[in-house]
Amino acid sequence: MNRCLINGIAAGHVSVSDRGLHYGDGVFETIACVAGSAEFVREHLSRMREGAGRLAIPFPDPALFLQDIAALLASADAAGDCVIKLMLTRGAGRRGYRYDPLLAPTRIALRSERPARVNRWKQGMRARFCETPVSVNSRLAGVKHLNRLDSVLASAELGESCDEGIMLDPQAHVIEGTMSNVFAVIDDVLVTPDLAHCGVQGIIRGKLLQGAAGLGLQTGVRELQQHELLAAAEVFVCNSVIGVCPVTQLAGRRKQPGPITSMLEQVLQHLIEIDVQAAE
Amino acid sequence: MNRCLINGIAAGHVSVSDRGLHYGDGVFETIACVAGSAEFVREHLSRMREGAGRLAIPFPDPALFLQDIAALLASADAAGDCVIKLMLTRGAGRRGYRYDPLLAPTRIALRSERPARVNRWKQGMRARFCETPVSVNSRLAGVKHLNRLDSVLASAELGESCDEGIMLDPQAHVIEGTMSNVFAVIDDVLVTPDLAHCGVQGIIRGKLLQGAAGLGLQTGVRELQQHELLAAAEVFVCNSVIGVCPVTQLAGRRKQPGPITSMLEQVLQHLIEIDVQAAE
Repeated sequence: MNRCLINGIAAGHVSVSDRGLHYGDGVFETIACVAGSAEFVREHLSRMREGAGRLAIPFPDPALFLQDIAALLASADAAGDCVIKLMLTRGAGRRGYRYDPLLAPTRIALRSERPARVNRWKQGMRARFCETPVSVNSRLAGVKHLNRLDSVLASAELGESCDEGIMLDPQAHVIEGTMSNVFAVIDDVLVTPDLAHCGVQGIIRGKLLQGAAGLGLQTGVRELQQHELLAAAEVFVCNSVIGVCPVTQLAGRRKQPGPITSMLEQVLQHLIEIDVQAAE
Repeated sequence: MNRCLINGIAAGHVSVSDRGLHYGDGVFETIACVAGSAEFVREHLSRMREGAGRLAIPFPDPALFLQDIAALLASADAAGDCVIKLMLTRGAGRRGYRYDPLLAPTRIALRSERPARVNRWKQGMRARFCETPVSVNSRLAGVKHLNRLDSVLASAELGESCDEGIMLDPQAHVIEGTMSNVFAVIDDVLVTPDLAHCGVQGIIRGKLLQGAAGLGLQTGVRELQQHELLAAAEVFVCNSVIGVCPVTQLAGRRKQPGPITSMLEQVLQHLIEIDVQAAE
């Protein structure tokens, strides 16, 4: 039963010279697969291609990633839910930051179980503000790259009493969760942080902004302060694996799951159904 | 002939689940080995231990790294010069930023050739200012970690006409080279950027600051502006592999190698000799 494909071949190891290991020189995507169907594959591959372009990593034929996904799903328990992580690194090279532009990238597809705790999180997540800030680099803003020490250190702050951490930039603006994007309902407007300077532009974030506009809901992508998040009528986080999850505890204060969160969760479910049907 | 040891065993691959690959979750050191002797090993291991501590990665018994280094040197051409890169990652784990604190770290020791171009660089390096800024995260400042996309993208700007790139922070202060620390002689003071907020505190940088003080030379660790570097009487860069190299061209302007650069290069050579003799 294949769990991992490297350049399309079942394998469990990468070269010790891979630049993904040495420098985090690559990009990745995390794709939810429910009942044997991978969700929003086109959007994930499109974002990955864009991120690879930003790093000047040659992007392989997307059909190769599609084959990897199909092979991993075919070898999984067909009815089971899982997560497929795709990675593309610049490949194995000589020591040193400078790279040979002709290097062959390493294509990785890795299947893992859908975390059981997601079912609990759907009822409500406990969140806190993290001390570890988001890393800032204008050249890397928005790219889902492999330099993720900020999220690693932030998630280590959570302990057992929290499910997700809200990360701030150095000016203490709310940016994102350690593994999610953040939304708030403030004065009936759906607000999410502007990610022009840092943070990862999530696929689900994009879908929800579109879906909300389609519902006639006013949206705002802007600077967001901690006190605004604390005072918001509704707060939720989202990503490809957890979908939409209400935040029911924030920095020790209780919050109620709200109607807009619940409506957007339904919109997302609908968009997923359309996506999966279109792919069949 | 062993080129790489992973947890002390000759190998060429790491687990595809290694957190070094997924998140850049680890630290590294680059050690110069000349005529069969590894330089400043104690200092490198001490910095690595401190960096691992900042990331809460358990640090192995340093004797294990010493054994790795000895084994790689014993299997190399004894008279040859080489570079040994040590890496310590948090180890192979399940998907997700959160980690099990009991994870066994991955210890990597990798030998490569000393780059031939270093001999040319000793005569003078051509440098430019890079557009890619240094990544900023207060929790990571000074740590030689595996999140190095900023240096990768900056070094890609150099092309064939430049040997090293000078990187700035978002406020356009001079911070470091893509692979080196930067020094300037300004009004007879040896100046190097303050790295409290970002950048890597190099071993050689520390040795030169000590050595300069020992010579009665005034030193300044402070904010440094681009125009100051351009106007400085002498500019040089340093790291463990290249030692001290004068910058003889900066942003298109020619510069002369100066007497303080040359004196510090001799001081460094002297400190290396003392270090190697003490280790024998």
